[in-house]
Amino acid sequence: MEERLQGNPVSEGIAYAKSYIYIPGTLTKAPGFFPKGQEEEKYREFRETCEKADGELVTLYNGMCKEDPDKAKIFSAHRELLQDEEILDEIREAICAESMNPDSAVSKVYTEFAELLAGVEDPLIAERAADLRDVRDRLLRILSGQETSKLSSFSEDVILVAHDLLPSDTATMDRKHIKGILTEVGGVNSHSAILARSYGIPAILGVPNVTEKIPTDTMLAMDGLTGEIFVTPGEECIRDIREKQTSFFRKKEAEKNFLNKPAIMKDGTEIKIGINIGSQEFDVPTDRYDFIGLFRTEFLYMEGKELPGEETQFEAYRQVVQKAKGNPITLRTLDIGGDKTLPYMELPKEDNPFLGKRAIRLCFAEKELFLTQLRAALRASAYGPLQIMFPMVGSLEDIRKAKEYLNLAKEQLKERKQQFDEQIRIGIMIEIPAIALIADLAAEEVDFASIGSNDLTQYLSAADRMNPEVAAYYKSDSTAMLRLLGFVFREFSKREKEISVCGEMAGNPETAQLLVGLGARKLSMSSGNIAGVKAKLAECTLQELTALAEKKL
Amino acid sequence: MEERLQGNPVSEGIAYAKSYIYIPGTLTKAPGFFPKGQEEEKYREFRETCEKADGELVTLYNGMCKEDPDKAKIFSAHRELLQDEEILDEIREAICAESMNPDSAVSKVYTEFAELLAGVEDPLIAERAADLRDVRDRLLRILSGQETSKLSSFSEDVILVAHDLLPSDTATMDRKHIKGILTEVGGVNSHSAILARSYGIPAILGVPNVTEKIPTDTMLAMDGLTGEIFVTPGEECIRDIREKQTSFFRKKEAEKNFLNKPAIMKDGTEIKIGINIGSQEFDVPTDRYDFIGLFRTEFLYMEGKELPGEETQFEAYRQVVQKAKGNPITLRTLDIGGDKTLPYMELPKEDNPFLGKRAIRLCFAEKELFLTQLRAALRASAYGPLQIMFPMVGSLEDIRKAKEYLNLAKEQLKERKQQFDEQIRIGIMIEIPAIALIADLAAEEVDFASIGSNDLTQYLSAADRMNPEVAAYYKSDSTAMLRLLGFVFREFSKREKEISVCGEMAGNPETAQLLVGLGARKLSMSSGNIAGVKAKLAECTLQELTALAEKKL
Repeated sequence: MEERLQGNPVSEGIAYAKSYIYIPGTLTKAPGFFPKGQEEEKYREFRETCEKADGELVTLYNGMCKEDPDKAKIFSAHRELLQDEEILDEIREAICAESMNPDSAVSKVYTEFAELLAGVEDPLIAERAADLRDVRDRLLRILSGQETSKLSSFSEDVILVAHDLLPSDTATMDRKHIKGILTEVGGVNSHSAILARSYGIPAILGVPNVTEKIPTDTMLAMDGLTGEIFVTPGEECIRDIREKQTSFFRKKEAEKNFLNKPAIMKDGTEIKIGINIGSQEFDVPTDRYDFIGLFRTEFLYMEGKELPGEETQFEAYRQVVQKAKGNPITLRTLDIGGDKTLPYMELPKEDNPFLGKRAIRLCFAEKELFLTQLRAALRASAYGPLQIMFPMVGSLEDIRKAKEYLNLAKEQLKERKQQFDEQIRIGIMIEIPAIALIADLAAEEVDFASIGSNDLTQYLSAADRMNPEVAAYYKSDSTAMLRLLGFVFREFSKREKEISVCGEMAGNPETAQLLVGLGARKLSMSSGNIAGVKAKLAECTLQELTALAEKKL
Repeated sequence: MEERLQGNPVSEGIAYAKSYIYIPGTLTKAPGFFPKGQEEEKYREFRETCEKADGELVTLYNGMCKEDPDKAKIFSAHRELLQDEEILDEIREAICAESMNPDSAVSKVYTEFAELLAGVEDPLIAERAADLRDVRDRLLRILSGQETSKLSSFSEDVILVAHDLLPSDTATMDRKHIKGILTEVGGVNSHSAILARSYGIPAILGVPNVTEKIPTDTMLAMDGLTGEIFVTPGEECIRDIREKQTSFFRKKEAEKNFLNKPAIMKDGTEIKIGINIGSQEFDVPTDRYDFIGLFRTEFLYMEGKELPGEETQFEAYRQVVQKAKGNPITLRTLDIGGDKTLPYMELPKEDNPFLGKRAIRLCFAEKELFLTQLRAALRASAYGPLQIMFPMVGSLEDIRKAKEYLNLAKEQLKERKQQFDEQIRIGIMIEIPAIALIADLAAEEVDFASIGSNDLTQYLSAADRMNPEVAAYYKSDSTAMLRLLGFVFREFSKREKEISVCGEMAGNPETAQLLVGLGARKLSMSSGNIAGVKAKLAECTLQELTALAEKKL
């Protein structure tokens, strides 16, 4: 009998397929032992497994960096756990002294550590236990010879139903056969939601007890626009959903026509479209975008076992310049610290990392790290139009200090007689309210700026953008935010300084319209959002959008 | 031989006295056992010790609430540890099953738990170990019959020299004999600095290795204005420091003349001076202040073992109203959550508590808690000019929602036929940038507002005010902050709505001048700051301060 459920629609699209109930399990069995004499071989097997797991985590990290750099940090945390000396010592002891099989040793030691932490009342620590189990399960899977995770390959189309999805689950999921996602927890900013949107999979989250209500292999229809779920839908409902699906696909197809064209509005106004990239391995044809508005450089620092050298960085930056084929590139200097950590570098743990020693603040404290990156970026500027952008700038002093570092890096290159663009353009992220409020003064000091709407909203509304408890207070279209954005656009435009937006507001068709109405002429986004934004902008005139923004103000 | 050291001056004043090197120690000895049959008596001794310790912590909490409510939370965390079931079970086991003396049992169990946590790499957890040790030492001290801590009574004047000071150390320190404080760590916003200022004890922090460089009983001269420390000063230096001390005292004495007078500037402009209080046990003569600008209500929630009832709250609020003798009182509704926890209430642990479910956000989620407080406050308003202020308001929706709750509370009282001020004035804290940016719209919705300059600075500059790593980025006199403050004063004054400042900027004579120059006419502060602020304001004209503010802008 048809039943109707309701949840939060977080990723648009329509799906009709069989349910697959995903309950992550753990490989467990009674501990096994091996005959004496094989210690060395068994321990080697364990070490090789660790290396494979590390390799997987690096791949996952890099993949995630492109989708959502914030979430990528989870994998670097897992890499740290893989290298935890106390754990490694106990496993070696179990294998070499007790002749325990590697899988049993891994299971025993990781489980014990996880239980130790899970017993602590503090939920922050209990979360660490989940990470330990995630790493354990990865090692056990590799030891058992399975190359891939459960969700990475289906033989038919399914709608995935789960309590929640972990990063390890989603990063490698079978994007071809998973047609929809339903979970019990999570909001519009949750990990699962962000992933689903970037994969273009319809998703409805926050459906109470859905894993209990729906058995596996049940036919489901879901509407990712309204949040409706139909369990064992009747004929009429199936017809309805098929129609909706067709019109949704038709809309998406229609949007695709805009993909390779400039973003021209009805009245002929052109909006420049940029892309945000997370490594040199981006794969977007140059006719889809006008500039690279945000080149995040964190990936270089996360994938290795130590700080990347100047040559490694230079090589990566040069590759991006060459791939961009003459399109301008905005390289953002290292935005790490706070919630993003490096496995090989001790960073201070902070009570409020988003209000802490992040990004340029960390770079100011780590002089050599900063100069190395600046030299690498400068050298790449000899190969094409690369410009440098500083994140988490809060004052004119910050800008001047960053410029001093850049000048020092230039001096160093001159001494070495290495080439770079002497006129390299420098800019800032506008993500701290204090700098937005003095946009007039800041514009005098820089060549350009890019608004990081996610962080700006977070600080402006004092609501952690990752915390579902305060999601209702995180409002990027509040009057305060729109006033501030309008002020920034006005002050930069007045001085003929380049101003763009690279936060999530730019990639959402509705808020992109609003931004244009407020004065934006350059929007940078994930490549997956280009078609939708271009199509939406083509629907209206600049005058209409200006009126829309004024109404909102 | 005279030696000169330098540190961060964080609390003004001059001192000349002998050094006292404070190295916190732990009472330890070999475990002792008692004869069988005394289990019940010994266990009762332990439980009584716990109750005494809890009583001390409540006293410490209440005392600290008045000085610095943010730091008071440490003592509620200690109270929680005192009630930890796992620890209590193990101690009962040791006493009742193993006949271990209570002190040995406490020492063994707390130390084991502390070591367990200290072994975890995460510094956040390692900090918890320090709390466990602090609680353990408190229990051991009480068991040994010592009523007070080491720093609570000296027979002669000393300058206290320590690596760092813990809350337990400072809350009970001998304020008569401790003439100065030197520590190796800590900045201007650290716990020790805040305490030293509120106690009026000169302090210089961040003096490298000072506990090693200075032996105990060494003569020291220190200048808390410049950060200079003279070890075994020569005659000339002593004369110098005596002179400085005399002129400092003279200045302080001169300031005292202003204490009971209105704050009148040279040109006759009067600035209304308010006080910030943390409980009904404040003790400030009514001729020193014009209004109570901030009555924090957290103490009621922290001192008990459960949520305070309506009667308890009503009684406390009414006492304040009566003590204020007709001066208006601004009662701030519960500002808890995030970094401030309640021992009896499960609050979510958050990655960024300052950007989390704090204050009114928590109250919106805890309907009964909120309504109970509103009813109690309303009932107290029948006894005098009490007005209600909502903290952490970020939007007009927040204001409207808070008003709805207030109306509901009014309805409930009407049904009960209980009296309250029907025209009670309602207002908001301006501490979130988003509400400051729409001060014009907010002013239409409320009767008054008070600027919380500490939090506003924190969010505006994205720098945690408690994190010494980013102290340099926490700037309350930045151009952005001054522009925003000016805007808020202007928009509220234009609409003839009351606007005051209750953050630290109001209590510092220099920034108080700046605030007046920007348009403030009401400043609320800790009572210890009244004399200094009044004296400083009397030095100049409004025109001069307006010019000063314009120059800064």
